[in-house]
Amino acid sequence: MTFEGYSVKIKNALESQKISVGDLIEIKKGSKTYTGMLMPRTQGDSNCIVIKLANGYNIGIDFRNASVRRIKPAKKSSEKKPALSFDKTKPQVALITTGGTITSKIDYETGAVRSLIKPDELLDTTPRLREIINLTEISSPFARMSEDMNADDWAKIAKETARLLNKGNKSVIITHGTDTLHYTAAALSFALKNLHKPVVLVGAQRSSDRGSADTTMNLVCSAYVATSDIAEVGICMHGSINDDYCLFSRGTKVRKMHTSRRDAFRPINELPLAKIWYDGKIEIVNKNYKKRNDSEKVEADAKFEKKVALLKAYPGSDPHVLEYYASKGYKGFVIEGTGLGHVPTKSKNSWIPVIKKLTKDGIPVVIAPQTLYGRINPNVYTNLRILFYDAGAIPGQDMLPETAYVKLCWALGHTKDFDKIKSMMMENIAGEITSRSIINAFLM
Amino acid sequence: MTFEGYSVKIKNALESQKISVGDLIEIKKGSKTYTGMLMPRTQGDSNCIVIKLANGYNIGIDFRNASVRRIKPAKKSSEKKPALSFDKTKPQVALITTGGTITSKIDYETGAVRSLIKPDELLDTTPRLREIINLTEISSPFARMSEDMNADDWAKIAKETARLLNKGNKSVIITHGTDTLHYTAAALSFALKNLHKPVVLVGAQRSSDRGSADTTMNLVCSAYVATSDIAEVGICMHGSINDDYCLFSRGTKVRKMHTSRRDAFRPINELPLAKIWYDGKIEIVNKNYKKRNDSEKVEADAKFEKKVALLKAYPGSDPHVLEYYASKGYKGFVIEGTGLGHVPTKSKNSWIPVIKKLTKDGIPVVIAPQTLYGRINPNVYTNLRILFYDAGAIPGQDMLPETAYVKLCWALGHTKDFDKIKSMMMENIAGEITSRSIINAFLM
Repeated sequence: MTFEGYSVKIKNALESQKISVGDLIEIKKGSKTYTGMLMPRTQGDSNCIVIKLANGYNIGIDFRNASVRRIKPAKKSSEKKPALSFDKTKPQVALITTGGTITSKIDYETGAVRSLIKPDELLDTTPRLREIINLTEISSPFARMSEDMNADDWAKIAKETARLLNKGNKSVIITHGTDTLHYTAAALSFALKNLHKPVVLVGAQRSSDRGSADTTMNLVCSAYVATSDIAEVGICMHGSINDDYCLFSRGTKVRKMHTSRRDAFRPINELPLAKIWYDGKIEIVNKNYKKRNDSEKVEADAKFEKKVALLKAYPGSDPHVLEYYASKGYKGFVIEGTGLGHVPTKSKNSWIPVIKKLTKDGIPVVIAPQTLYGRINPNVYTNLRILFYDAGAIPGQDMLPETAYVKLCWALGHTKDFDKIKSMMMENIAGEITSRSIINAFLM
Repeated sequence: MTFEGYSVKIKNALESQKISVGDLIEIKKGSKTYTGMLMPRTQGDSNCIVIKLANGYNIGIDFRNASVRRIKPAKKSSEKKPALSFDKTKPQVALITTGGTITSKIDYETGAVRSLIKPDELLDTTPRLREIINLTEISSPFARMSEDMNADDWAKIAKETARLLNKGNKSVIITHGTDTLHYTAAALSFALKNLHKPVVLVGAQRSSDRGSADTTMNLVCSAYVATSDIAEVGICMHGSINDDYCLFSRGTKVRKMHTSRRDAFRPINELPLAKIWYDGKIEIVNKNYKKRNDSEKVEADAKFEKKVALLKAYPGSDPHVLEYYASKGYKGFVIEGTGLGHVPTKSKNSWIPVIKKLTKDGIPVVIAPQTLYGRINPNVYTNLRILFYDAGAIPGQDMLPETAYVKLCWALGHTKDFDKIKSMMMENIAGEITSRSIINAFLM
């Protein structure tokens, strides 16, 4: 075990005590004593020693004028076989792990983060889960970082979720990488038919060995949502950069809006369903959700057409890229239009003739807002009327481009009939289209 | 002139008085009298009659129990030749109009909005401009809705701006459609070399015949920015949905974030430069700006390579579309990566081999954040190291994807040397890259 990232002074102190990363240690500094598991140091002040406390949080302690001693060596992986919870007074919940930062550790070869944790180690890092739920099963159909997921993975997760819900679990919590978490959330929203239990997607923006780790709080809040009556697919992550509350946002109305902040997942064009505090308090923010009904059977209707493209219209953009995709057998398109839903119309590079040809051939072209917030409106401008009424594009209303993409994959997985696709895309199926815009849902 | 949109009662009252849209009318209701120009009714309650007051604002008056009479017929277009301001005590400012909603009127053929106003009519709709600036010239190089603009238009605007600044004007105000306003703002930011005067881009989210029109306030606030010492290219639009203040945000750090709200233009990853109140008060929010120096000469360095593509990586996305573009002679790419800058890496559809081949051939591939907020970080994850260190992609840091696209067009307009492009893309040229992230610049 290396102490890379720690100062020479800390390194020497640890080596002299034969301490390794993972050992339970005690640090004395002045009149204070800190006890916790020694963590590796990946960034930040090398004079700070980082330990994971019993409550799951990491803290950094300035090691100047401090001393350290080992209390207990790290458990070897092979010794670890933590029992799942069997407290039958707690609600039965199953966990699906799929990879991502939330189940990752530092890779000492490269210094970067890799998906390495064994699923049941989550119970070690977040022991409080046992106080909230009775974890019946941990299923790990695969482990990958979310940038590498695709529609086959969405289908696998949907089927596994339905199986676990229909076995009598009150909810399923799914751990997942954050990069494409909102795409998967949208996919499950469409694929889980007749859902009447919470399906809680959760990830981590920081790996568990960092002082600002968000895994514990996100998991604990997810467990509370799992026991709630909010029978929706949603994402549960930090609501602010403080460890005060998480948001649970609808799976079709949420997006990763920041590369690194812990509160990166924001509801778009809708308020979050609920705020969840670490002590279990749940504040319903948006009353428009389905209520729990534990007797309903869930069906995984997880057919996705993969030949769908998501692209962007912008100054100078080339419409012929649509023909490239069509020549490769693509069955549908989502275009991020500018403003109320524009594509270049009267310029040399007009997208109109190409879109008109595609829709005539029965290939749906959906326009979603590049602005993210707001609603496509086919009526305001002459150029919009040309696009929607003449060229046959489908207005995506207030759907996120990512949600529109997932929905079109799903719709085309069920039919190739243009008119049926058009009405599916314009109809609200899983909360992805709201009928009225809410004024304070902007930049929320 | 049609009264479409007005109730039968209002229509009859107007016809009996031989009133046309554009006439100066007086409405009496109870003890109150309202005087203003009759506007067409495009949406909203048909029982409300809309007039434009002398201060430029539109109001709607419930016509029940009201009466109307004509004071003065509309001026015919041919009669209108409003003189430009010649108050030499006011700062000399020139105006460039390029089309868009801000210079649009309702098209009575289709009911939709078209670019129709003659540029100098802006002085009629916003007479207060004369109190703030001495408008020396109105230049109208072309008129189109902004979804139809491209790099040739950016170059034209840049050259015209430089010409007008070098003629002794203290600033140039540019009216523009809002859809791609932020692309043009970024283009001018890179193209105007040695700029030491304000260049103020302004648009309108609502056409001037609507009750919620934003033209007047946006133009008035722009005029105040034009007289300020903030020597930057920026966008000046409503800062909130109330008519309280506008924001002036740096041209490389601003984005249209809502399809229809008047406060749609938001600074991203940076605070706005200033808040501007309708009474002329300017509150500097971000002190990091260039100061005015009226003796400097500006140069328009407006060469843009058009064969650049902006695309998005997402689950199931096809990397071979890059090869399609390359086969058409494309010289560079900006990819909106997920999270900290990922593309599908270890999946069947890995983007890595295609990107590696392109960068080996000397074609730059820049990764910008799909999340919009935050910063690309090439170091955190193994997959990122593969993309940036092995495949040679260029991390776009905290640049907006749209800004990165415009910058790459501009950089490739000057050199095709891969290493030079790489250092240009990683260096801050026009405020597009910040060295430190500001915590309250998220969802601002």
